[in-house]
Amino acid sequence: MMKEGQSMNIQHLIDMRREFHQIAETGWLEFETTIKIIDYLKSYGYDIKYGKSIHTIRMGLPSMDEMKNHADAISLERDYEIEEILQGYTGVVATLDTGRAGKTIAMRFDIDANGVEELKVDTHKPAKEGFASKNKNAMHACGHDGHITIGLNIAKWLMDNKENLNGRYIIIFQPAEEGVRGAKSLVGAGVLNSVDYLLSGHIGMGVEKDELVVGTLGFLATTKLDIYFDGEPSHAGASPELGKNALLAAASCALNLHTLPQFGAGMSRLNVGTLVAGTGRNVVPSKAKLEIETRGENEDVNELLKEKVKHVIEGSALAFDVKYRIEIAGSAPSYPKYNREFIDKIKNYLEKDYTISVGKNLGGSEDVTYMMNEVERHGGKSVYFMFGTNLKGSHHSNKFDFDEDVLLMAYNVYKKTIEMLNK
Amino acid sequence: MMKEGQSMNIQHLIDMRREFHQIAETGWLEFETTIKIIDYLKSYGYDIKYGKSIHTIRMGLPSMDEMKNHADAISLERDYEIEEILQGYTGVVATLDTGRAGKTIAMRFDIDANGVEELKVDTHKPAKEGFASKNKNAMHACGHDGHITIGLNIAKWLMDNKENLNGRYIIIFQPAEEGVRGAKSLVGAGVLNSVDYLLSGHIGMGVEKDELVVGTLGFLATTKLDIYFDGEPSHAGASPELGKNALLAAASCALNLHTLPQFGAGMSRLNVGTLVAGTGRNVVPSKAKLEIETRGENEDVNELLKEKVKHVIEGSALAFDVKYRIEIAGSAPSYPKYNREFIDKIKNYLEKDYTISVGKNLGGSEDVTYMMNEVERHGGKSVYFMFGTNLKGSHHSNKFDFDEDVLLMAYNVYKKTIEMLNK
Amino acid sequence: MMKEGQSMNIQHLIDMRREFHQIAETGWLEFETTIKIIDYLKSYGYDIKYGKSIHTIRMGLPSMDEMKNHADAISLERDYEIEEILQGYTGVVATLDTGRAGKTIAMRFDIDANGVEELKVDTHKPAKEGFASKNKNAMHACGHDGHITIGLNIAKWLMDNKENLNGRYIIIFQPAEEGVRGAKSLVGAGVLNSVDYLLSGHIGMGVEKDELVVGTLGFLATTKLDIYFDGEPSHAGASPELGKNALLAAASCALNLHTLPQFGAGMSRLNVGTLVAGTGRNVVPSKAKLEIETRGENEDVNELLKEKVKHVIEGSALAFDVKYRIEIAGSAPSYPKYNREFIDKIKNYLEKDYTISVGKNLGGSEDVTYMMNEVERHGGKSVYFMFGTNLKGSHHSNKFDFDEDVLLMAYNVYKKTIEMLNK
Amino acid sequence: MMKEGQSMNIQHLIDMRREFHQIAETGWLEFETTIKIIDYLKSYGYDIKYGKSIHTIRMGLPSMDEMKNHADAISLERDYEIEEILQGYTGVVATLDTGRAGKTIAMRFDIDANGVEELKVDTHKPAKEGFASKNKNAMHACGHDGHITIGLNIAKWLMDNKENLNGRYIIIFQPAEEGVRGAKSLVGAGVLNSVDYLLSGHIGMGVEKDELVVGTLGFLATTKLDIYFDGEPSHAGASPELGKNALLAAASCALNLHTLPQFGAGMSRLNVGTLVAGTGRNVVPSKAKLEIETRGENEDVNELLKEKVKHVIEGSALAFDVKYRIEIAGSAPSYPKYNREFIDKIKNYLEKDYTISVGKNLGGSEDVTYMMNEVERHGGKSVYFMFGTNLKGSHHSNKFDFDEDVLLMAYNVYKKTIEMLNK
Repeated sequence: MMKEGQSMNIQHLIDMRREFHQIAETGWLEFETTIKIIDYLKSYGYDIKYGKSIHTIRMGLPSMDEMKNHADAISLERDYEIEEILQGYTGVVATLDTGRAGKTIAMRFDIDANGVEELKVDTHKPAKEGFASKNKNAMHACGHDGHITIGLNIAKWLMDNKENLNGRYIIIFQPAEEGVRGAKSLVGAGVLNSVDYLLSGHIGMGVEKDELVVGTLGFLATTKLDIYFDGEPSHAGASPELGKNALLAAASCALNLHTLPQFGAGMSRLNVGTLVAGTGRNVVPSKAKLEIETRGENEDVNELLKEKVKHVIEGSALAFDVKYRIEIAGSAPSYPKYNREFIDKIKNYLEKDYTISVGKNLGGSEDVTYMMNEVERHGGKSVYFMFGTNLKGSHHSNKFDFDEDVLLMAYNVYKKTIEMLNK
Repeated sequence: MMKEGQSMNIQHLIDMRREFHQIAETGWLEFETTIKIIDYLKSYGYDIKYGKSIHTIRMGLPSMDEMKNHADAISLERDYEIEEILQGYTGVVATLDTGRAGKTIAMRFDIDANGVEELKVDTHKPAKEGFASKNKNAMHACGHDGHITIGLNIAKWLMDNKENLNGRYIIIFQPAEEGVRGAKSLVGAGVLNSVDYLLSGHIGMGVEKDELVVGTLGFLATTKLDIYFDGEPSHAGASPELGKNALLAAASCALNLHTLPQFGAGMSRLNVGTLVAGTGRNVVPSKAKLEIETRGENEDVNELLKEKVKHVIEGSALAFDVKYRIEIAGSAPSYPKYNREFIDKIKNYLEKDYTISVGKNLGGSEDVTYMMNEVERHGGKSVYFMFGTNLKGSHHSNKFDFDEDVLLMAYNVYKKTIEMLNK
Repeated sequence: MMKEGQSMNIQHLIDMRREFHQIAETGWLEFETTIKIIDYLKSYGYDIKYGKSIHTIRMGLPSMDEMKNHADAISLERDYEIEEILQGYTGVVATLDTGRAGKTIAMRFDIDANGVEELKVDTHKPAKEGFASKNKNAMHACGHDGHITIGLNIAKWLMDNKENLNGRYIIIFQPAEEGVRGAKSLVGAGVLNSVDYLLSGHIGMGVEKDELVVGTLGFLATTKLDIYFDGEPSHAGASPELGKNALLAAASCALNLHTLPQFGAGMSRLNVGTLVAGTGRNVVPSKAKLEIETRGENEDVNELLKEKVKHVIEGSALAFDVKYRIEIAGSAPSYPKYNREFIDKIKNYLEKDYTISVGKNLGGSEDVTYMMNEVERHGGKSVYFMFGTNLKGSHHSNKFDFDEDVLLMAYNVYKKTIEMLNK
Repeated sequence: MMKEGQSMNIQHLIDMRREFHQIAETGWLEFETTIKIIDYLKSYGYDIKYGKSIHTIRMGLPSMDEMKNHADAISLERDYEIEEILQGYTGVVATLDTGRAGKTIAMRFDIDANGVEELKVDTHKPAKEGFASKNKNAMHACGHDGHITIGLNIAKWLMDNKENLNGRYIIIFQPAEEGVRGAKSLVGAGVLNSVDYLLSGHIGMGVEKDELVVGTLGFLATTKLDIYFDGEPSHAGASPELGKNALLAAASCALNLHTLPQFGAGMSRLNVGTLVAGTGRNVVPSKAKLEIETRGENEDVNELLKEKVKHVIEGSALAFDVKYRIEIAGSAPSYPKYNREFIDKIKNYLEKDYTISVGKNLGGSEDVTYMMNEVERHGGKSVYFMFGTNLKGSHHSNKFDFDEDVLLMAYNVYKKTIEMLNK
């Protein structure tokens, strides 16, 4: 018989969540976060994989300087190898093999924070109670501190109960979910190989407290692009014709990009989120950068939109005779539909304990879809939960906070789903 | 001794000018005009060249339909071959060889009208006195009817006095000066070969009555381009993403083109004069056409500007994934500087009879510069006169008219210059 | 007992449809069409209303010249007053009052043709069999010739059976449905007052032959706007700074308008269908016109979009210091949802005779929604049928044609629905 | 008899120039520079004016934070009041009244550095010889360190020779010439009141070593504007229609601004030098800033261009329903023509000692024109010298340096001109 969840103390979850909240680190810079997760997992008895071995191509990587500065700021030391982590190979994969025949169940928890400066006023509980982020411009404003906590405690429960479990368990602590950057790298490295079931989810997301969503839908396909234009400077008064104007290329590009997203084949979106161009008032601007994103109700829409985007970028560069470069800073596929039978099975099992709704829309993008699609492509099944809770402030705002009761609910939902899948 | 100009009756010039005013025909459609000029020249005893033999590539040609419609409308017949004329090979070159050694003097008179509907009210003399244009949307609103008249009467005078003259005389009646289209075709066909002196000029142009400008400057290099974008239509409501939007390509092109003409190396201009795009309100527009022009203080400026224009057009097409086509609809080079000695010689000869100014700016473009540059490239010399007169309405306006006294002045200036060059 | 539909000869319907096909006339120019409808209705014994009495504000009216030219071309005479019709007050409303208590049933049939030049080749049946449109650039390419035919025959049947019917019948022959221009004018004039049931529909629309759609959905709210920019011309070479550039205002407007239709609150569309600007290549363009349309999944979306459109137009004019004018050339509201009970009642009654589907999407706009909303606002009920048939060529194409069997089907559907509503 | 310039040691000039080179400070932040100038002037025996008393409205002022940070960085202390200087009221005006009747001669020396990070390699003499700027992003890359040096030494010479001089001398050390920001503030405060002669000039500027330009021309009128757009953010995926897009307003503004500078009435220029917009990739951008400049061959051109610029900014804001704000960050008038007689008088006096050219073009803007126009408006006369020298690197580049011999030449030119004006 398994050790029961009643032994789980809500205060323990809260404390751990607050510990991670304080060391909020943004995507690919989750150095201290990763190391702390490793420390916990080691203390539970796990052998784990991390560093280059779990990564392929990392999209939207910060610059070497940003990495170095952050590493210097936190100055960590361990008796195990952390060099690769400090180069941005963040995240951890823990595996438990019970040695008994059975299914392979993977779980994914995202660990990164947002590039937001946390509010430091008493109306904001993390500030008032002293667990606000210690890092500048980094705040857990989307609840991933909670996700880490749930993941670590499920890992501990699995280890504690491994004698009563069958098959294999893979617990993925994914970096850089914000900006949909990290999942593809892990999937490429094979961390989802031979998985029968993939469980993941998110707290909050507009779901009411104590409500559980099973089988989320409406994951939009998305691509994040950084666009660079590179022209030639010249004196704007004396010889404007010798310049090649990257600012005007970028301005024309921005306007023309925004004419693209009208699609009959499904909802589509495009946003030029930032544009930075020029070096001085009296110089023909030779440099410009845009950060943009596309979204589509399905892959086809997003792919056709991306193709159109590429034309506009190339054309804008050509029009002003400047060079261009496109960097993919993030991406996530859509998740067209779930396995109804599997979702219903989970629903039926859990609905004695929870108010459940099925098939609610995420209304955004999440790169866990790389993992869900990968698992299902090989015959596996996946479920994405949404755990309802009361929020202070919207996701990504500097006053975001959640009712910590949701930690126990989510912990129990994972635990019970694993129990059911073991039956 | 030459037959004198005193025999020239101003009324004869006026009558002939009014005859041509009535049959105003725009560029490459000067069918009746050309035939009437031929008739006169034949009556003076000239053998003349016309049709394909005096043309190479004609820029800015009207469509077959326009030519056919105009030919049908005027239904001309002659006992000589006029077929090629009715295909747009308009204009005439008359040559008089005195048989005596001497210089070759060419003169150029432009013969086309403007695409303007002539004013039909009594304040406008051509209307009041019954010699307004009989053709719709064609009016001699730039005085070329006067130029023809001067040219024909000079031709007659030359023939009448051929026994007293030396060398050869080439009298060019050039079509399609408006839009700077005709000169290049004639030059290419060799009508300026072996010319020692080229005389040409313009009446009006803001010069005061009875003032004569010798040695005009400020001819701007110019290029006229027609730009076509060709995309794909689609239903704007049901499947906008299937369209390829030529209207937006054209709109972006127009805006981006207008960012180009800032040059430190000399004055430059660009104008997108017309833009016509789309087929219906609810269809993604698949067609667009722009009529544009570039100008430059010198060839280098205009050439660099054209290169930038090409980039913008290509880039605009690429951005919206539409095809493009560029047609050169006209062009004229600049005329950087005249032969000061030659200009002074003419000035000195004529200044007993006229108030003369030297080196005034045209402030625009004229494709006679192809001819002037051609003659000078081969060691010849050229002069461009401006014959001052009172104007009603500005050039190209529907109420343009000029004081017909200028006809006699211009006739005499050409005659006396030829006399001087014969000395 | 009613006189039966079995007496309806399909050939009679075909002949009448072909009669109207030949005199295809576009919106507000349905002069001959209107008069022929009046003639028929009079022959059936109807008193009818037409001309100014059935109109308020007519959107998207052709110019006086276009009306005069068309009136001259067809030269009609009648012993009744047709003057107002020839001024564009087209369409007819026929009313039959049985004198017996009962419901008021209105029916709406649209009568205008499309601005399309009909294909004149033998593969196109109307051409081969000699009933193609006799008018230039006017063709029944959307089946309204069929609608007229159905309406007139229903009118005859009603008159023939008036002793067996109760209540009142209003048969509306609406002009200018294309471009969604006519319905609003009729509604404003009160032709839908006190109506209990409104029946209307469309043949074709992608519905398969012999299939009947009851209760159409997905009518998009739409607005058609004509935008005029009015600047100042100037010589593009000599004094460009004196011009006020309407072409650039229009180009900037077109691009900026196309950045608008991204809406989270429902599907939205915007199309700048045509742009015509400028007067000549070397003149700063002083005139521009755009024809645009907006669409929205619901009124709110379309209204917010229109508000944004207004900002862009005003801003574009202000940016280039030109004047602007906006004319509403057409509009139709959405039709959010039907009366399920009423639709089901019709479906249940008709499904013994037809393959029926309920609630299919129109996927476009139709100004009958003004009438449906008007009727329902006052407690009435409405149904919009789609009558399946095989099509040659898509709607609005120059080779559009339909299988004329659909005429009898539609005739019977209206008849049976009226019978049911009389029970 | 005056104390002679032969007593001036070139090494003294070089040492002082290098002293000021090391403490390079950009416009309105010339704290240490101003204080050091005051120290020198006090040591020469001058009473001086500085702080608020010499300023009115300062254009293009850095933020409070920038001022505070710079003040903290250099931590100066003096036994006289420097508080206002540290608030950006930089610059000094020194006056010497000989007590004898005579003319008032003003001189102006600009003192600010450029926002450029000085090159730190041995090929750059200031780096090699240890006198490179000690401040980050501040470098004397336009020779104003030399101007200060010349001004201080002329001040000393005046004081040393005051017994031999007549009239009054005003020596103006002007801040913030870069970006044409400082002169207007000083003129407004009356520092040029009752001036008979104004002497100023610049070293370098493409003039060859040992050549002296007397009577500079071609000062372009210019205006520097900062433009702010302020919209509303919203989630770009979920509710794009709720955003008000400042980035697109700025992009459209930038493109449309660049369509403006075609002027027949004189050369004009416009440059959008920088554009910074947006806060994050997935947020509708609510903020944008542009830094632009206009130039005109004369005031009328620049004023009309500014008017057009204002329309474009307002229209762009209106089009996207965002707020806007325009800040004037700098300006300078043109200087249409000099007093020929005065210039010739100087030339004639100096040409025994120097190779002189008259009336060379500056080819840019300089806000000394505010002062020159002010003096001439009240009947005074002014001269602007250019002192030729060999340069390393172009003005404003990070490797700019000049041949220090020019310091002595300029010193002597000022001295001799004053001597002449005293005669």
